[in-house]
Amino acid sequence: MARFIKKISQTAGLSPGALVHVGERSKQPVKITLLDYDHNNLTEKEIKDIKECFSFKDTATVTWINIDGLQNLELIENLGYHFDVHPLVLEDILNTGQRPKYDDFEAHIFVVLKMIMFDEQAKEIVSEQVSIIFGKNFVISFQETQGDVFDSIRTRIRNNKGRLRKMGPDYLAYALMDAIVDGYYVILEKMGDKIEVMEEDLVSNPDPKMLHKIHKLKNDTIYLRKSVWPLREVVSGLERGESALIKRQTHIFLKDLYDHTIQVIDTIETFRDMISGMVDIYMSSLSNKMNEVMKVLTMIATIFIPMTFIAGIYGMNFNHEASPWNMPELGWKYGYLGVWVVMLCIAGGMIMFFKRKKWF
Amino acid sequence: MARFIKKISQTAGLSPGALVHVGERSKQPVKITLLDYDHNNLTEKEIKDIKECFSFKDTATVTWINIDGLQNLELIENLGYHFDVHPLVLEDILNTGQRPKYDDFEAHIFVVLKMIMFDEQAKEIVSEQVSIIFGKNFVISFQETQGDVFDSIRTRIRNNKGRLRKMGPDYLAYALMDAIVDGYYVILEKMGDKIEVMEEDLVSNPDPKMLHKIHKLKNDTIYLRKSVWPLREVVSGLERGESALIKRQTHIFLKDLYDHTIQVIDTIETFRDMISGMVDIYMSSLSNKMNEVMKVLTMIATIFIPMTFIAGIYGMNFNHEASPWNMPELGWKYGYLGVWVVMLCIAGGMIMFFKRKKWF
Amino acid sequence: MARFIKKISQTAGLSPGALVHVGERSKQPVKITLLDYDHNNLTEKEIKDIKECFSFKDTATVTWINIDGLQNLELIENLGYHFDVHPLVLEDILNTGQRPKYDDFEAHIFVVLKMIMFDEQAKEIVSEQVSIIFGKNFVISFQETQGDVFDSIRTRIRNNKGRLRKMGPDYLAYALMDAIVDGYYVILEKMGDKIEVMEEDLVSNPDPKMLHKIHKLKNDTIYLRKSVWPLREVVSGLERGESALIKRQTHIFLKDLYDHTIQVIDTIETFRDMISGMVDIYMSSLSNKMNEVMKVLTMIATIFIPMTFIAGIYGMNFNHEASPWNMPELGWKYGYLGVWVVMLCIAGGMIMFFKRKKWF
Amino acid sequence: MARFIKKISQTAGLSPGALVHVGERSKQPVKITLLDYDHNNLTEKEIKDIKECFSFKDTATVTWINIDGLQNLELIENLGYHFDVHPLVLEDILNTGQRPKYDDFEAHIFVVLKMIMFDEQAKEIVSEQVSIIFGKNFVISFQETQGDVFDSIRTRIRNNKGRLRKMGPDYLAYALMDAIVDGYYVILEKMGDKIEVMEEDLVSNPDPKMLHKIHKLKNDTIYLRKSVWPLREVVSGLERGESALIKRQTHIFLKDLYDHTIQVIDTIETFRDMISGMVDIYMSSLSNKMNEVMKVLTMIATIFIPMTFIAGIYGMNFNHEASPWNMPELGWKYGYLGVWVVMLCIAGGMIMFFKRKKWF
Amino acid sequence: MARFIKKISQTAGLSPGALVHVGERSKQPVKITLLDYDHNNLTEKEIKDIKECFSFKDTATVTWINIDGLQNLELIENLGYHFDVHPLVLEDILNTGQRPKYDDFEAHIFVVLKMIMFDEQAKEIVSEQVSIIFGKNFVISFQETQGDVFDSIRTRIRNNKGRLRKMGPDYLAYALMDAIVDGYYVILEKMGDKIEVMEEDLVSNPDPKMLHKIHKLKNDTIYLRKSVWPLREVVSGLERGESALIKRQTHIFLKDLYDHTIQVIDTIETFRDMISGMVDIYMSSLSNKMNEVMKVLTMIATIFIPMTFIAGIYGMNFNHEASPWNMPELGWKYGYLGVWVVMLCIAGGMIMFFKRKKWF
Repeated sequence: MARFIKKISQTAGLSPGALVHVGERSKQPVKITLLDYDHNNLTEKEIKDIKECFSFKDTATVTWINIDGLQNLELIENLGYHFDVHPLVLEDILNTGQRPKYDDFEAHIFVVLKMIMFDEQAKEIVSEQVSIIFGKNFVISFQETQGDVFDSIRTRIRNNKGRLRKMGPDYLAYALMDAIVDGYYVILEKMGDKIEVMEEDLVSNPDPKMLHKIHKLKNDTIYLRKSVWPLREVVSGLERGESALIKRQTHIFLKDLYDHTIQVIDTIETFRDMISGMVDIYMSSLSNKMNEVMKVLTMIATIFIPMTFIAGIYGMNFNHEASPWNMPELGWKYGYLGVWVVMLCIAGGMIMFFKRKKWF
Repeated sequence: MARFIKKISQTAGLSPGALVHVGERSKQPVKITLLDYDHNNLTEKEIKDIKECFSFKDTATVTWINIDGLQNLELIENLGYHFDVHPLVLEDILNTGQRPKYDDFEAHIFVVLKMIMFDEQAKEIVSEQVSIIFGKNFVISFQETQGDVFDSIRTRIRNNKGRLRKMGPDYLAYALMDAIVDGYYVILEKMGDKIEVMEEDLVSNPDPKMLHKIHKLKNDTIYLRKSVWPLREVVSGLERGESALIKRQTHIFLKDLYDHTIQVIDTIETFRDMISGMVDIYMSSLSNKMNEVMKVLTMIATIFIPMTFIAGIYGMNFNHEASPWNMPELGWKYGYLGVWVVMLCIAGGMIMFFKRKKWF
Repeated sequence: MARFIKKISQTAGLSPGALVHVGERSKQPVKITLLDYDHNNLTEKEIKDIKECFSFKDTATVTWINIDGLQNLELIENLGYHFDVHPLVLEDILNTGQRPKYDDFEAHIFVVLKMIMFDEQAKEIVSEQVSIIFGKNFVISFQETQGDVFDSIRTRIRNNKGRLRKMGPDYLAYALMDAIVDGYYVILEKMGDKIEVMEEDLVSNPDPKMLHKIHKLKNDTIYLRKSVWPLREVVSGLERGESALIKRQTHIFLKDLYDHTIQVIDTIETFRDMISGMVDIYMSSLSNKMNEVMKVLTMIATIFIPMTFIAGIYGMNFNHEASPWNMPELGWKYGYLGVWVVMLCIAGGMIMFFKRKKWF
Repeated sequence: MARFIKKISQTAGLSPGALVHVGERSKQPVKITLLDYDHNNLTEKEIKDIKECFSFKDTATVTWINIDGLQNLELIENLGYHFDVHPLVLEDILNTGQRPKYDDFEAHIFVVLKMIMFDEQAKEIVSEQVSIIFGKNFVISFQETQGDVFDSIRTRIRNNKGRLRKMGPDYLAYALMDAIVDGYYVILEKMGDKIEVMEEDLVSNPDPKMLHKIHKLKNDTIYLRKSVWPLREVVSGLERGESALIKRQTHIFLKDLYDHTIQVIDTIETFRDMISGMVDIYMSSLSNKMNEVMKVLTMIATIFIPMTFIAGIYGMNFNHEASPWNMPELGWKYGYLGVWVVMLCIAGGMIMFFKRKKWF
Repeated sequence: MARFIKKISQTAGLSPGALVHVGERSKQPVKITLLDYDHNNLTEKEIKDIKECFSFKDTATVTWINIDGLQNLELIENLGYHFDVHPLVLEDILNTGQRPKYDDFEAHIFVVLKMIMFDEQAKEIVSEQVSIIFGKNFVISFQETQGDVFDSIRTRIRNNKGRLRKMGPDYLAYALMDAIVDGYYVILEKMGDKIEVMEEDLVSNPDPKMLHKIHKLKNDTIYLRKSVWPLREVVSGLERGESALIKRQTHIFLKDLYDHTIQVIDTIETFRDMISGMVDIYMSSLSNKMNEVMKVLTMIATIFIPMTFIAGIYGMNFNHEASPWNMPELGWKYGYLGVWVVMLCIAGGMIMFFKRKKWF
């Protein structure tokens, strides 16, 4: 359940803007990396003391500060203070139960999104909140734990290939969002494969565990949907927004990102439709199985019950000697054989009846 | 049902604006508390006679009058008269079956919302109507009973920490609403935990009582939804509204409140999805159980019915002496043993048949 | 079905505006009452000849003409002619299968709504069409039969208390609509009580008649919804409309009426949700009952079938004298007792098996 | 299926505007009737050669050309050419799988709608496409076959009563559309009666054929919905449209038509809701029946199986002579009677058990 | 699953605009055909080297370059470079998991749509992405494999009949889109026929394989819907768009295309409704079958079980000689016949009981 609702109640009663870290506390230390670049120069270093960053704030170069881990409140408060970030924004960064959203403060834009990963242990999808603040010449990104999908971007910056080093912080922020959305595809493919495997299994052998797997998958799509659906508004808001921080040439990339987001949402909706169809198949497979069980029972019972009755008849002890009307068949020459013939006829008749009913 | 529809019919036929208290009558006396503050000064007292409040109306300080209990109509009428409140508003305050809403009268803004609590006795969610009127320098809040979620706000006012003492009545009204919405999270977490427990129980032992629990939970989400959904419009209306009563710096806090409301609604929708999935699981667990019962019956019956038939055959009394064709088997040396062998073969065959069908 | 679709086909092929009364014909005579008032004076009389009304048309006082019964076409045509009502409006008044709607003709406003009542005989909800035309200083209301929810309004006019006598025909029209909407609450409460009773009954003893009751209730909500849903647009249209006929101070009352309408719709939707949940419970209760029946059958059968088989074995007539291998048990000293022991063991084993399966 | 999707693929690959008649080919010859009228004069004749019509095009009188049968492509092309109709419009007229729609070409307005009839043979609803083109002083209507709902309009024109002869082609076009919508009510009533009958049948005896009837009815509502739903936009488009071809005084009639269309759609939606409720009832009736069958089986089986077991016991052949422990009961004085008493007690106990379970 | 989600994750981490072909790689070589025409002249040739095309870019004639196969990245990059196509567009062309969309770059318009085909092998619907770029005097179309629905267009160009040769590249682009949408009708008819066949089969013999067919059909509609639904926005966007590239006279054709698209979507929705109705029928047919099986079992069992019991009674060995109370019936004159009479009465009574219950 933890993944559906964070324990935000911890902050209930606190003053708005009060900083409390809501979420699982990472045990790794906070790690700060700084990349400062323009088309020609590149500085890259790991930061120990957050104050080292402040000097980069007003340089003409693009500065990307990435912070892994939210447990150090003082650090974040300090950073927020120096980059003029509103306390409510800092609260949102720490409170990891946010819905994807963006806020346009004139001096900077604040974006929250969800990085989706597959937790191999719990066999379910989990998410990590990524917050991005970008201003005129800086980008600050916050993650809950170390390990992310941004390595390819770092490589592209270092290699100085492509557009990245030539463009501003708005493009870098776009690139970060794009990397996160690209990560969704990986998850969707994994889910797609699972659905495919399950659909085949449902046909061959539907067992009760299957439903729980379907249910888990369904919860995964619910979760994914909750994480991705609001992103649509975020990206379209950024694209159509009037912020001077987003340059004209970046708009087409945001449009492209928007298309990707819609594609992801489309696929999630398709998965939902397919999974709900699978529940139908499962339910009817159950009914089918019950039908089959009932048929076997009915066939055996209807064949043998009349025969057993006949056998019962001739097991009666009516006294033939007291009255010739009593069970004369017992003394007939072919009485026993005749009974067998009658019983086999009954059995044969029943089998023909079942054949005609197409029960087997 | 009382929680879904208040006995508003009591007011049918009355003139609009006629004051009738609709709702459960609290047995406690009405309690009025007054807090009057600016950045430097603070007056706090419990009011016995409502007239004491009137002098505070036009002071430059912020005055917060909180009224617990709606049973004293005269008091409310009096207060309404002095603070120029429209009779329809007074009617809405007393008629506790309101939908969350807000109305902008130029001199003041009227907001109705629902405080949600968990009723431990009835094991269900209940709500209490909170009405807030705020004007240029006063906030009046009405509650149905004593006991609320506003204590933290009182503490913050007394401590003079944070923003609260520096800002106006619009911020105080926001703080009250924020406290109520924070209260929703507590309820949502409780529900989330319940859902989690139930999902596990459904897998291990689905019993008929479970469905009633699910049904109750579903009714709770329906109720919660009804109470929270309209809040979205209320908050967004306040945020985007043009009222001069809401100052510019408060807007960002209302935006934040709006985000929280959306998050709450999102979570409720997620719960609805999950609960409806649980009904599916429950239904199929029932089918599974029936399947299992049928299998046991079928196995026992199909193994023993043919064997009983054979035993019946050799219980027949055909007279071997009358005709050598009658039941010669009875006199064979290994007849009895042979019958046992045949019967065991049938039993074995059946068991193999079931194994192949994967029935156990 | 009559309540879901009126026999409008009677008018098919007629010229638009042709007057035909569609609906159940009341057997009572048409009754016309007239109330003419301003703040100081009040005239109230029952009208025999419609022409008596015409003189009131252009007086400065507010004139309310109420007509119970639509069977007198000539009367209505006459009235329509004198008050300049468009023939299509007259057609709509007579054709009682209308959807709630309003039309703004500059000289007057035409509103159609549905008065809802509970028909004790048919045990279902029925509605009556009420049409209201109000102009600069008159209100004309049409009802299908005598007996209505307007008595409280008449009393308020006579008593000259409250706002009613001080305000114009727009406020009177509002008061009529408000009285009708207040009537909805009475019906909703009745339905709410029914739902509550049913929910409890479903738990204690679900029988097949229950489903028909649920179905009837569901049809009632469908019907109610159909009657109330369009009212939302009507009221919001009147409130936001620009008509000079609706004075500024009436708008806040229309807003209040709008809130009530929304509340009614909300409650209907909630009822729909709850009723659909009840069908689920009913279905699963059926399955549960079947499960229980099957369990009893299976337990009896699985306990006795093997035992009967053993009894059958020793009922066989194999000839011990012909061969010592044939049924030596029959001659053992404790053979009979031993068979009882074996059979009791089987029964006990089965019972333990069922206990472990938690079948009872 | 033909009614859900016309074989439009015939036109695939053709140039847009290419004329191909898509739909069932009528075997009757094409029939053209012409009505030319103003307030004072009326010409009515059946046309053999389409060229006779052309002279009426520019007269001041209103000309209504009605064409029954679409199989003569040349005729339609000719007509289209003389009345300046766009080839795409002609294509739409011939391709009878159109959705209701309207197009405003300045010189004329083109409207497509569906005339609904009940096919007594196939026991299902079918539709016929009616296309209407109206310009400054002409109306051309196209139908697939002879036989229509326009007779009342012809009569009204001939009688020169009502508004029709005084108004222009826009009013005639409205009257045609109104006649078609009036025809929907006839169908809806027929469906309503069917639903009512079925609901009662479902209660008294639900048999498998019932579901197919429900399914057919459901497909009928799907079909009806598909035919009527887009009409809403068409009529509201015409009403709010700015076309000079539609005079001011016609707007109120279009508004009235719009109200009728909404009423039709409302009723269809209500039917859908009711039919889906019927499927629920049917399903649960099936379950109920199964329950009843199972109860009978279980009662018979549980009463007789234990008794048969006891009879089996005393059918065993244990040798009393070999050992006094073997079946001494057989020699008791009241052994046989005692066994009967025991068996009757078992039967009675079972019956009481069933009574307590309320199984009958 | 491949058809629901392409392996777009291959591109994750790449710079936006990086060219990677996502989709099944065709084994045929890339085929380029060029058609250059105006009203009087026509050049048609197969291109080996893409550079041959470049000279046609700025001629006044309309140039249509069609490329079958996307595996040659260099070729596409080259072409893109010469026709000033944005790298993101090239990426979209190659990444065949696009949603239908259009982008308006001033110099050209880019449209992506899906060509739908029925894969006879997999017995399911598959799609192929078609990308169209059209500028002032050129149209470039990209397909994944050879074989398309454009042959009729080529023929119309060669024949110089109709409008095609007289109009510009916008009309050609429209014609290509129209051909693709026409192709949808072919698929819809095929699906419609399948649904019809299935509906009949469901009635006559519902077997478990049926559900899988229904499920497959349902997945097909989900897939189709996903491919077609966004097309609506694309076409309406092009029609209402302000691009100078789309001439005034083309708008009416786009409007027509829009109508077709809506029709296709309508039909898909109708199919969805019908298919979901089929699942209901299937489920209830299963229940019916089970009912029938149960009835047979119950009838056989309830007729024979009591009779077998009676036979069992008289198979008991109570010693008549030891006591005259023991089984005197065995010595009666008509004892045996009497037992037969009793048993036949029981059987007859049971059969009458079943008749009254209408079980057969």
